[in-house]
Amino acid sequence: MKGMLVIISGPSGSGKGTVVKNLNYSLSISVTTRKKRPTEQHGVDYFFCTEEEFVYMRENNELLEHAAYVGQYYGTPRKYVEDQIDQGKVVVLEIEVNGALQVKEKFPEAVLIFLVPPTIHELARRLAFRNTEDSLEVEDRMQRALLEVQLIDRYDYLVINDELDVAMTEIETIVTAEFLKPHRSKMRIERFTLER
Amino acid sequence: MKGMLVIISGPSGSGKGTVVKNLNYSLSISVTTRKKRPTEQHGVDYFFCTEEEFVYMRENNELLEHAAYVGQYYGTPRKYVEDQIDQGKVVVLEIEVNGALQVKEKFPEAVLIFLVPPTIHELARRLAFRNTEDSLEVEDRMQRALLEVQLIDRYDYLVINDELDVAMTEIETIVTAEFLKPHRSKMRIERFTLER
Repeated sequence: MKGMLVIISGPSGSGKGTVVKNLNYSLSISVTTRKKRPTEQHGVDYFFCTEEEFVYMRENNELLEHAAYVGQYYGTPRKYVEDQIDQGKVVVLEIEVNGALQVKEKFPEAVLIFLVPPTIHELARRLAFRNTEDSLEVEDRMQRALLEVQLIDRYDYLVINDELDVAMTEIETIVTAEFLKPHRSKMRIERFTLER
Repeated sequence: MKGMLVIISGPSGSGKGTVVKNLNYSLSISVTTRKKRPTEQHGVDYFFCTEEEFVYMRENNELLEHAAYVGQYYGTPRKYVEDQIDQGKVVVLEIEVNGALQVKEKFPEAVLIFLVPPTIHELARRLAFRNTEDSLEVEDRMQRALLEVQLIDRYDYLVINDELDVAMTEIETIVTAEFLKPHRSKMRIERFTLER
């Protein structure tokens, strides 16, 4: 049976990093033009490439989404994701809202999950607790979160990350249910109709 | 929170009757023009009505679907289903494919689940085992099952009823996941954005 691409987005402070790290699924690996750090491995942390290689991939529709960040390119390689799915794996991609919607357009069978803290208060508390952001940055991230939430209807599911265990179980429930959709069950339907 | 309408269809021999009976959800109650039997209760087994009342309901869009069977009318009352959903209940409607697709058109938020036995062999075995049908009728039902399966793409989910417990758990998983869709979570989204 084919696997599935699951995309998880959410405001910073939603805890999506922790959720994604703890899920028992494969993580997608991004392509980037930024320099490899000593602790990083090609094909594990990132696929490192030159700017020319990146532009070639982008022009040849080999990236499901791409963005620039601090002068470097980042993207999601279509072939890697498709290979994992063909092997039956559930591939998780943690990505911001614009990237997620780009992927959904090129890859409609992707499952989009939006993760939020229970309330905007809780988001503010979590951002402040990190202590790394000044209050202007906290306000900026909260404004961005409120903008992102307006796009929630473009997502397939909304998961509230109040308790980590509950949020993770809900994501697993979504994946199980998605495997029961007819378009993911072609083989089972054929088995039913052809085995006479 | 609002409830949900879950429609379960499947060929006779799919075991949908047993599944529906064992699920811990409310059952939808049909309207019918047929005579009440002594053991039956109005508002429990059926809503009994005259032909004039039935036609009035049908003409006034008060039925989510309707059909005639052995000279009597049967239908699903929209108001009853909507009231149950407004009370937060999961309402289950066991109905054949044409009826299910009629409901989906009038009530797009309904969740359509198609239940099948693991193989067409198994269906034949189950139908033959009932012993009430002659072999011509078994063949007829199998042909009908193969026709119905062609419409599976119009359904939201496919559940294979190999073991009753597994099938029931899968249906419960579908319901849980469906409650996580953004269009069923308006209140949770408002809570997130307005509670500042």
